[in-house]
Amino acid sequence: MPDSVSPLAPTGFPELAPIAGVRLATAHCGIRYPGRRDLMVALLAPGSRVAGVFTRSLTPGAPVDWCRHCLPHGKARAIIVNSGNANVFTGKKGRRAVEETARTAARLLGCPAREIYVCSTGVIGEALPAEKIIANLPEAIAAADEARWGEAAQAIMTTDTFAKGATATAMIDGTRITLNGIAKGSGMIAPDMGTMLAYVFTDAALPASVLQALIKPANERSFNSITVDGDTSTSDTLLLIATGAARHKRVASASDPRLKDFRRALDEVMVSLAQQIVRDGEGAEKFVTITVKGAASPAAARRIGLAIGNSPLVKTALAAGDANWGRIVMAVGKAGEKADRDRLSIAVGGVTIAERGEPAPGYDEAPVARHMAGRDIAIAVDLGIGRGQWTVWTCDLTHRYIDINGSYRS
Amino acid sequence: MPDSVSPLAPTGFPELAPIAGVRLATAHCGIRYPGRRDLMVALLAPGSRVAGVFTRSLTPGAPVDWCRHCLPHGKARAIIVNSGNANVFTGKKGRRAVEETARTAARLLGCPAREIYVCSTGVIGEALPAEKIIANLPEAIAAADEARWGEAAQAIMTTDTFAKGATATAMIDGTRITLNGIAKGSGMIAPDMGTMLAYVFTDAALPASVLQALIKPANERSFNSITVDGDTSTSDTLLLIATGAARHKRVASASDPRLKDFRRALDEVMVSLAQQIVRDGEGAEKFVTITVKGAASPAAARRIGLAIGNSPLVKTALAAGDANWGRIVMAVGKAGEKADRDRLSIAVGGVTIAERGEPAPGYDEAPVARHMAGRDIAIAVDLGIGRGQWTVWTCDLTHRYIDINGSYRS
Repeated sequence: MPDSVSPLAPTGFPELAPIAGVRLATAHCGIRYPGRRDLMVALLAPGSRVAGVFTRSLTPGAPVDWCRHCLPHGKARAIIVNSGNANVFTGKKGRRAVEETARTAARLLGCPAREIYVCSTGVIGEALPAEKIIANLPEAIAAADEARWGEAAQAIMTTDTFAKGATATAMIDGTRITLNGIAKGSGMIAPDMGTMLAYVFTDAALPASVLQALIKPANERSFNSITVDGDTSTSDTLLLIATGAARHKRVASASDPRLKDFRRALDEVMVSLAQQIVRDGEGAEKFVTITVKGAASPAAARRIGLAIGNSPLVKTALAAGDANWGRIVMAVGKAGEKADRDRLSIAVGGVTIAERGEPAPGYDEAPVARHMAGRDIAIAVDLGIGRGQWTVWTCDLTHRYIDINGSYRS
Repeated sequence: MPDSVSPLAPTGFPELAPIAGVRLATAHCGIRYPGRRDLMVALLAPGSRVAGVFTRSLTPGAPVDWCRHCLPHGKARAIIVNSGNANVFTGKKGRRAVEETARTAARLLGCPAREIYVCSTGVIGEALPAEKIIANLPEAIAAADEARWGEAAQAIMTTDTFAKGATATAMIDGTRITLNGIAKGSGMIAPDMGTMLAYVFTDAALPASVLQALIKPANERSFNSITVDGDTSTSDTLLLIATGAARHKRVASASDPRLKDFRRALDEVMVSLAQQIVRDGEGAEKFVTITVKGAASPAAARRIGLAIGNSPLVKTALAAGDANWGRIVMAVGKAGEKADRDRLSIAVGGVTIAERGEPAPGYDEAPVARHMAGRDIAIAVDLGIGRGQWTVWTCDLTHRYIDINGSYRS
């Protein structure tokens, strides 16, 4: 367990208002962590709709397989998440553990098993004792209430050093709706305690197809625009739930202009959660915003931003507070996207270091060195060849990353 | 400068026999390193043919642009390499520095400038003082002889902790020929002292088209199968020179069966040089061989091997001597190649840890832990879905990597 909170953590868990149709509970099942709540149950009112995005890993865990299988039905009555064991690479036993958990919850709630989303995060390759989860379900379901957001965010943590939450409100067609999100993750995959999990809840009344159409681009701009170490979990899961409790008129399409404010709020919540994951990056001591513009396309800008954000040489220079722009040039070059050295400009902390393929005339390193000594670092790259732009967030690579990930599993 | 030799270094520089048509010289130009020879000149007999492979970086240095421009002519009379300054991101001044160096050498040797290959390795973004190189050319050319292989390998070093050389002999059509190679590199790109450079010389009499056809697959199996940190230099350069001094009959095609033994020897030299670069990986304490088989294709096997070899989570576990196979599963999953969790098997040090998607029954960690405590680590992955196989070499990610790369440039 982490012994101290990340120096980049926000001052505290935000206040999350209740969302009609969502009730939360947690329990202590003793899966791995002694004396810690390791089960989160979110109960969803009948009629709740769900959309999701899962890891692109080709060796996903049994829970991801299960959630993928449920998703086309578009309805959800509960999300059940355990921490401490990822139920990955566990063969038939792993599949059975998920199915038994879902079937038990379905029986207790009186719904089909495919409306129960089951997620796991923690160690890989050990059998998940589903019976410990199942035994705690009746009491958790009975105890669930609308106010336990912070407790829920805590129960899904593994190596996270702080609980992650975000909230926003938006108007849909004159009706005020709320979005609450919780997430966990510390490293794109934490050391065997794998995984990024994020759950966003709203009382909006939107069909699953609209939710799915909204969540994909928002995911690109948020969780798919962060990197801690470039590794991909076998369990990454993002779910967006709409309970339908809000009384706005029917919205049938994601391109409906009445969703403009909702899109903005969804982005806000998801970007905040994504940034909190970077702020809890393993061993992170600096939060780094990489803005790429002038690229051939937005996708090219993102790939270039991630090439910079994933480069161990850039990240070790950041840890040392060294404005080593030669390594940024190198990372741009290796991204595989169109680039022209003679049009490339780089700024750090708002100070132009290199422009159009050469060191900027009269460049003074002193203000840049001061900026690099801080906690929040801004890197701006202008490719100078097109209009594509994207923003990516990352953290530095420190000795603590190696300490955390080099320690034995047990 | 490195203060100690890598613990993975070979016992010494190998003995390299002279190659008819190749003469070497070094000089101290004072580009960056006080008291060190920082210029290597290889003089090649008239009629020498050349093939090359360069960085895929889209922000290459001026010397790479120059060598690419020369290569279609296929002839070479000299290779001039300086260490200490990479001449990258140096604009028009950088191009001029290369051209003036090449033109001066061409005048001294009485050949066209396009037969002079110029390479630089070292810091990025600082103007290269070409006049210091040019001033030393006449004396270096006068002093060149056939025996200075170790001295040449030393003069091209930047953060390398040992000089890298390899040799092999082969028969072409009944004539014995020699191949000598020297290389530098310590990290796919060392901290601003960027770059992998490798030069392989032979007295074989082969046209440039045949050399080019031979070097590409050999490069795939050697330098393109190693990774230290997954970063790509702006200056990576590999040249293969054939002086034509050997008296075998004309060989017009790379697929000529008389080249079988030469291919074997070329592979041997290049794989040895590539492995030496990994053994000098920044901060490396373990040399890791990753063998992937059962993949959909050889290319898929290589990508999976490199995904494992580039994963910071795998590399930190290796540094800690932790046989953390969950991270290997994760890396296989993120490689983007066809994989089936339920057919995947993993062995470390010859001991099967996981097979067909589950922990191996009765797996005993003790012998694996002993293997992981050593210097040479063997990871074997069997995808179980096809016949593609590949071998990749890497090193671990240690605190010293961060120390080396986090230190200031000056």
